[in-house]
Amino acid sequence: MRKTVSILGSTGSIGKQALNVITDLSDKFNLFGLAAGANIEVLKEQIIKYKPKVISVRDKKSAQELKKYFPGLEILFGKEGLEEIAGSSQNDIVLIAVSGTAGLYPTIAAINNNIDVALANKETLVSAGSLVMNLAKEKNVNIIPVDSEHSAIYQCISSKDKDFIRKLIITGSGGPFRTKHLNDMQYATVKQALAHPRWSMGSKITIDSATLMNKGLEVIEAHWLFNIDYKDINVVIHPQSIIHSAVEFLDGSVIAQMGVPSMHIPIQYALTYPQRCKGLKSETLNLVQISCLDFAEPDLNRFPCLKLAYQAGKSGQSYPTVLNALNEIAVEEFLSNKIKLTDIPNIVEEGLNKHTPVHATDLNEIISADEWGRNFAKDLINKYLVN
Amino acid sequence: MRKTVSILGSTGSIGKQALNVITDLSDKFNLFGLAAGANIEVLKEQIIKYKPKVISVRDKKSAQELKKYFPGLEILFGKEGLEEIAGSSQNDIVLIAVSGTAGLYPTIAAINNNIDVALANKETLVSAGSLVMNLAKEKNVNIIPVDSEHSAIYQCISSKDKDFIRKLIITGSGGPFRTKHLNDMQYATVKQALAHPRWSMGSKITIDSATLMNKGLEVIEAHWLFNIDYKDINVVIHPQSIIHSAVEFLDGSVIAQMGVPSMHIPIQYALTYPQRCKGLKSETLNLVQISCLDFAEPDLNRFPCLKLAYQAGKSGQSYPTVLNALNEIAVEEFLSNKIKLTDIPNIVEEGLNKHTPVHATDLNEIISADEWGRNFAKDLINKYLVN
Repeated sequence: MRKTVSILGSTGSIGKQALNVITDLSDKFNLFGLAAGANIEVLKEQIIKYKPKVISVRDKKSAQELKKYFPGLEILFGKEGLEEIAGSSQNDIVLIAVSGTAGLYPTIAAINNNIDVALANKETLVSAGSLVMNLAKEKNVNIIPVDSEHSAIYQCISSKDKDFIRKLIITGSGGPFRTKHLNDMQYATVKQALAHPRWSMGSKITIDSATLMNKGLEVIEAHWLFNIDYKDINVVIHPQSIIHSAVEFLDGSVIAQMGVPSMHIPIQYALTYPQRCKGLKSETLNLVQISCLDFAEPDLNRFPCLKLAYQAGKSGQSYPTVLNALNEIAVEEFLSNKIKLTDIPNIVEEGLNKHTPVHATDLNEIISADEWGRNFAKDLINKYLVN
Repeated sequence: MRKTVSILGSTGSIGKQALNVITDLSDKFNLFGLAAGANIEVLKEQIIKYKPKVISVRDKKSAQELKKYFPGLEILFGKEGLEEIAGSSQNDIVLIAVSGTAGLYPTIAAINNNIDVALANKETLVSAGSLVMNLAKEKNVNIIPVDSEHSAIYQCISSKDKDFIRKLIITGSGGPFRTKHLNDMQYATVKQALAHPRWSMGSKITIDSATLMNKGLEVIEAHWLFNIDYKDINVVIHPQSIIHSAVEFLDGSVIAQMGVPSMHIPIQYALTYPQRCKGLKSETLNLVQISCLDFAEPDLNRFPCLKLAYQAGKSGQSYPTVLNALNEIAVEEFLSNKIKLTDIPNIVEEGLNKHTPVHATDLNEIISADEWGRNFAKDLINKYLVN
């Protein structure tokens, strides 16, 4: 039976690859809705090529503009548009690939309507992990991670093994500054920070990879997805990005998921789950050709963001929400050449220190903690301005 | 609920470790029977320490001798003794850790009586894979492999993934001659061949590791256990023996099982399956400390046994049975210093070339093919005698 899929964030890196998966496996999927943000031109091409039943764009103006080109198409907009597509009973599964905290609302809308979620948006679980996972449990909805690390862990835990987990091992390439000195990182340009050695991704996540905040957010996400204590989640630097993560069980046995570094596999896995399919781009891993896999400890002195994320995670309450908000603003400011790369952890740390935590179990609390973090970071920028 | 276990081959390397597992997890297991071959002194100690309900020894004489020490104990002997213990309805699971084709009869006895088998004996499936697996399917009995490679593969295939396998990747350390020249191998002493770099095992399997026949037998065993074509089973040399084997699925995703090189984990896994338990010796894998994992293609020129095993496997019928029989005798002769290490593949190849295959689907055919191979190898020894 075909699955009906909606893709929120269809013009981003993950969204485009998801549309390729659906095209590759056209006998397995129907497309229902697409949603995009600023990239209206790409969305127009996608509408023509993939023929969605409904779309959603950022604002009313874009919706009206687009309506001129596609008068017969249902065109929604804003937060409500995302929620309406995600929550439609037409869907079997919704891919949440919008970036930032905007992913939270449609995720909740899908779960509330008993629709499985393929989750490519880290911030949803970092900001609102307790809320989202409790709701998913209550509604008996699958949250299938799309991040390569969490997809790896998800694939490593068979149903009979899920009660015997001892430890999660999250791997990371180490990013473009893995072997660089702290001095070089201090004066890193945006271009250098965006030059990721292994993965081709959006700019926000690529900067997070350069600071290792990405691994930190993944640790928090893994904590919620797999219900594992922070002390039992380890980060290991693995430059070749072949082992995408692993799970150690009580008996000392470790199950790892490996593959060529391509998002195609985890995206396809999430959409075809619980089945696996031969996709057009499912390359074979050649261990002999790769020849060697290396592992090292992350350097918390050069990458304090990872330490801060563990601290926020362990402190719980609204700290992870605030960590994420502070980081999102700091990364924006770095991408606008306003602050140095190494100021990102400074801004995050200062915000965490000043934050008065709340429980963060309902959506309003989470949103106000998120706003507090954003405002704090914005107010702080002057202190760090480069020029 | 406790499982009742019998251990056939209790004085060997696997058997001893299995008794440790049962002692470690004494709240999970009851011991029913033990069986041993020549090592009566160790068996006596085991009887005192582990208090089995029944034992079996090699022959009547040993049984009578032992009866003097343990007058109240039920003492069986020979092939029938092994079968009686293995087939007893007292058992929940039987560990078959006797070496050679002697493992075949009790395996069949256990399956016929609907008892799960933890299989540490390679020859059973190499010689009689079709027969044994068909019987296990008919009786709905689990054959849980104990070999580290097959245990790894077994652990990598979750029930929802079993129909989507593309390839098995069997790893091997490469043995003591991995980096040696063919000349050195020609003049290798028994002691050199027994000096395995990673695994502490019995002498037969250690010599098989030195010739890579061990990997060849594992390929054939994997073919039967997991019902995978020979062309889809790859052998990769991995000197650190951390990745114990892996499975590639249709979508390009590879699931691997890793751990410290210790038989404790696969033995415990087979006995506690489908659960996992914290054992006393379940060491943690430290990837950072290991630092690097290497992979290479096996060299079929220096290790022709691997090529011969693939050929025998692909040819099917009684060829694998004969391969195993020829190899067993050749290894014995090498261990007795009668032939050179590099004559093992010559003897196997000559036997395979001369063999007239039969279907090998019933036990009599298998046994006569096995005998043909043994006799052929014995007759051939004079040609290769060192002195």
